[in-house]
Amino acid sequence: MAQEGRVDHEKLTAFAARAFKKMGVPEEDAWSTASILVATDLRGIDSHGMPRLGHYIRGLKEGRINPTPEIKVLGSAPATAVVDGDRGLGFVVGQRAMMEAIRRAEAVGAGFITVRNSNHYGAGGNYSMMALQYNMIGISMTASPRGMEVPGSRGRGAGINVISIAAPAGRETPFVLDMATTVVAVGKMEIAVRENKNVPEGWAVNTEGQPLLDPTKYGQEGALLPLGGNIKTGAYKGFGLTVAVDILCRVLSGTAGNSMTLGNHFFGALRIDSFLPAEDFKKAMDDMVQTYRSLPKAPGVDRITIAGEPEQAIEKDRRKNGIPLHPVVRAALQEMAGEIGIEYDLG
Amino acid sequence: MAQEGRVDHEKLTAFAARAFKKMGVPEEDAWSTASILVATDLRGIDSHGMPRLGHYIRGLKEGRINPTPEIKVLGSAPATAVVDGDRGLGFVVGQRAMMEAIRRAEAVGAGFITVRNSNHYGAGGNYSMMALQYNMIGISMTASPRGMEVPGSRGRGAGINVISIAAPAGRETPFVLDMATTVVAVGKMEIAVRENKNVPEGWAVNTEGQPLLDPTKYGQEGALLPLGGNIKTGAYKGFGLTVAVDILCRVLSGTAGNSMTLGNHFFGALRIDSFLPAEDFKKAMDDMVQTYRSLPKAPGVDRITIAGEPEQAIEKDRRKNGIPLHPVVRAALQEMAGEIGIEYDLG
Repeated sequence: MAQEGRVDHEKLTAFAARAFKKMGVPEEDAWSTASILVATDLRGIDSHGMPRLGHYIRGLKEGRINPTPEIKVLGSAPATAVVDGDRGLGFVVGQRAMMEAIRRAEAVGAGFITVRNSNHYGAGGNYSMMALQYNMIGISMTASPRGMEVPGSRGRGAGINVISIAAPAGRETPFVLDMATTVVAVGKMEIAVRENKNVPEGWAVNTEGQPLLDPTKYGQEGALLPLGGNIKTGAYKGFGLTVAVDILCRVLSGTAGNSMTLGNHFFGALRIDSFLPAEDFKKAMDDMVQTYRSLPKAPGVDRITIAGEPEQAIEKDRRKNGIPLHPVVRAALQEMAGEIGIEYDLG
Repeated sequence: MAQEGRVDHEKLTAFAARAFKKMGVPEEDAWSTASILVATDLRGIDSHGMPRLGHYIRGLKEGRINPTPEIKVLGSAPATAVVDGDRGLGFVVGQRAMMEAIRRAEAVGAGFITVRNSNHYGAGGNYSMMALQYNMIGISMTASPRGMEVPGSRGRGAGINVISIAAPAGRETPFVLDMATTVVAVGKMEIAVRENKNVPEGWAVNTEGQPLLDPTKYGQEGALLPLGGNIKTGAYKGFGLTVAVDILCRVLSGTAGNSMTLGNHFFGALRIDSFLPAEDFKKAMDDMVQTYRSLPKAPGVDRITIAGEPEQAIEKDRRKNGIPLHPVVRAALQEMAGEIGIEYDLG
């Protein structure tokens, strides 16, 4: 049972699936997309789960997203392919493309897929993590519309691109890195707006390159700083990672020009036992995590955490006690349900 | 002819090759290693070229580096392998392993190699760039000894790991990202020591987590901050990238525990025409670079640069006019030449 003010994750999944089906998405795709969205909320990535449901529903309604895409796999090399998503939901295209990478890694050890004509695919970690159950290392990247200030420029010049890498462990939590190439993800600005809080200096700048602290101004005049912040502290590295993601997602998939669309991804899978026995790998992962965890702690720090650990702890709680939905998100979902004519039962 | 105070790159290469041969490195390996070291200086990466020659010579002299390794390629999958470097020079093992990745990409579209029992391999870009002439995207990573402060910890807890990605372009300069996962590479501290300058706040901290500005104190009590700087501005991302490199270089190659040695690398190659015609890719690369270059410039900025451009400009100058050698470096090379008994002719 969900706690007061929270919603059970299965109820939430059913609601999202209902919304997708109503927009013409086939049963299986509706459920798989709903499951990924809610899995994102379960892991505490509140910026990328249900709060964005309305965005995808609008995309389907307005014809920007194709509910019944004919996804094509192009190319004939054993380890690589281009996937054309036919403007389908990013979740549907992303899962299909990551499975193509996994199948290739099963066959030859490594599989790498670049994707065009997809749409926003949510949190990158959903796809890299698909590799874990196959004892593979998973890679997931996506290129986003402009939102980053490029070093030496002003305003939004580059995508807020995403890199995710996942690797299985033994007794320890799997490693799951899931990061935007900016200091923070744009979702962090959306959360600050919902919570009516200023953001710290060093996250975003205005069109003059001055610190932007009021997140409500981000939409009109803001740009996020690349990871590294300013040029002296590594901004060219964050920008360089962004360009690398552009190359793998956009250029390599043959997406014309630098269109800064939402629909380009890149997926990879490495089959661990094509390098060494998976059990040896997992034991070495556990050793590595233990080594980091036993480092001397800074004052006030209880535990040194590795990427993926905080999310797993949140998931454990939310799976049992339900997912907290911000009143603003709840109201938006209720309104959306009314608009498209589906039952609203999220309280 | 080299300018006053500079040394011709061919002369420098011959000097380094002489030193390696004197230490028992076979002719071909001595020349290929010397060429990579000098290529690094040509590109302006002064922290990783000739100033480190003495370090490698010492490693050979003291038996830590094996001059005549029997390099083994292990595994039977078409796209992947483990390379055991038999404690050879990192340059020799690295080139061999990257060629294994390239050969696999030629055959099946992608090739990925993890490396154990190697040694310091210099600048990561030397290997990713090997892919360019094969019309491939190249990836090169290396795991380094502890030098990074881990978020929530104090002192040196994680490696100053390196990620390099290279991709060919058409008329434009190839993209070459070559970055440490710290705010700056440790070589930047060495350069500051040579130049007798303080470093900016935000690069390094002491064992109490306080800013370390005097680079001469780095060796005793310093740790570099992960890319992102502090926790609020993305330190977990820099640390996460470091751990990802540890996994690909150390864990995946079966290197026991978290030994933080120098000898682990990871190489990848993606054959572009297994995705799309290489000419289309290069044209799209040119378009992308042009798009970034035409962004509005911040006051005082002449040109927006993409990773790899500054290095190519420096190389053009140094190839013609010679490589500047800091007097401290020159003196060290002269002393080393005396110690091992080779001719010194660098002025």
